[in-house]
Amino acid sequence: MSHPLSQVKALTFDVFGTVVDWRSSIVREVETLLGERGLRVDAARFADAWRGLYQPSMERVRAGGRPWARLDDLHRESLRRLVADFGVQGLTEADLDHLNRAWHRLDPWPDVVPGLVRLRRRFILATLSNGNVALLVNMARRAGLPWDAILGAEVARAYKPQPEAYLVTADLLGLEPAACLMVAAHNGDLAAARGLGFRTAFVPRPAEHGPGQTRDLRPQQDWDLVVEDFLDLARRLDC
Amino acid sequence: MSHPLSQVKALTFDVFGTVVDWRSSIVREVETLLGERGLRVDAARFADAWRGLYQPSMERVRAGGRPWARLDDLHRESLRRLVADFGVQGLTEADLDHLNRAWHRLDPWPDVVPGLVRLRRRFILATLSNGNVALLVNMARRAGLPWDAILGAEVARAYKPQPEAYLVTADLLGLEPAACLMVAAHNGDLAAARGLGFRTAFVPRPAEHGPGQTRDLRPQQDWDLVVEDFLDLARRLDC
Repeated sequence: MSHPLSQVKALTFDVFGTVVDWRSSIVREVETLLGERGLRVDAARFADAWRGLYQPSMERVRAGGRPWARLDDLHRESLRRLVADFGVQGLTEADLDHLNRAWHRLDPWPDVVPGLVRLRRRFILATLSNGNVALLVNMARRAGLPWDAILGAEVARAYKPQPEAYLVTADLLGLEPAACLMVAAHNGDLAAARGLGFRTAFVPRPAEHGPGQTRDLRPQQDWDLVVEDFLDLARRLDC
Repeated sequence: MSHPLSQVKALTFDVFGTVVDWRSSIVREVETLLGERGLRVDAARFADAWRGLYQPSMERVRAGGRPWARLDDLHRESLRRLVADFGVQGLTEADLDHLNRAWHRLDPWPDVVPGLVRLRRRFILATLSNGNVALLVNMARRAGLPWDAILGAEVARAYKPQPEAYLVTADLLGLEPAACLMVAAHNGDLAAARGLGFRTAFVPRPAEHGPGQTRDLRPQQDWDLVVEDFLDLARRLDC
């Protein structure tokens, strides 16, 4: 292991996009539920629009325009708006609750579980996600993600890239930022982490946003590691 | 499963005494380290005295006499005092740090790991401990405790039996208190949990305090469950 990584004790993971393929999973759930109800919608456009409301909904919390709200609740508000925007009629409140919890049922990329199992031999594995604890617990149980701790935005009551999300996570792990390696598919997430002293690993996920993705295809800084996937990350960290 | 438990989705666990045999583990670590340094002390008396400072040290935080401090730091302050009280000389700061982290290396009771593995099939398993996150993560990795989430005092910034420790844990799990079953070897812990709407399971640990234990040998209320150990708990919950 190269010198900047010699102090690393924990890997902290972005989840949406980096660990799980949210788009394919949401498309599938939208198609299934609406199909059962005899409704039609462009599920890919619906999924992208839902994710499109993700940053704006968190931004109101970050900017102080509303008190803390967990991601499940932000997703639910966005869903209510989307259903109206897409002219979807006839879904019950129970249907909307079920669809909202599709974010608890996202599938990991194929390299993730075998990679995490190897990485866990040597490192503490923690989420550092904007997802709320219950969402991440349910996702982990369903997908077999072997986290040692579910941390990030909700326990810090601050959404990334606010510094508290990163710093509270490291503090709860009892570690200095330099002992934490942030693993993410998003340059912005890594930039925020690096600015606070975290080590950084970039894992490109060129299909996160579907065909025609333009963002985050390449590293935008000299991150401490740039790897192909979680199995490559395990190799590079001698796991 | 009987009616009061039909809504239960998560089991929340007291850890020190209920999950791990802190006394035997601390006695062993004290004997080992002091033996290596050629020092002698009554290790059982030392362990009991260390644990004896546990409630008073948290009480200062609970009463607002000092700002939030994690249990690792309270243990370390208590240790410094004990070393003086017992006239132990010649330990380095590194020795004291090592000994303090003996609380991260506590052994579970023999029924715990097989019981938790069975319980996890049907229930979310979370700590609801006064131990800090890093302590509980390190303990879980060493002992193979399959927690879904490490919650409790540190994420709530409140020590049991303060209500916030319980209520923040349930809230982070996205559950009402009635969907959480508090599992503890201590009647006081269960009483606090019940007062907030948690379901309750009492697991006696008559050897927690060594021979001659007088407290918490029997249930003091009609707890929802009174079980022999974690394997009995799994049976009673149809796991």
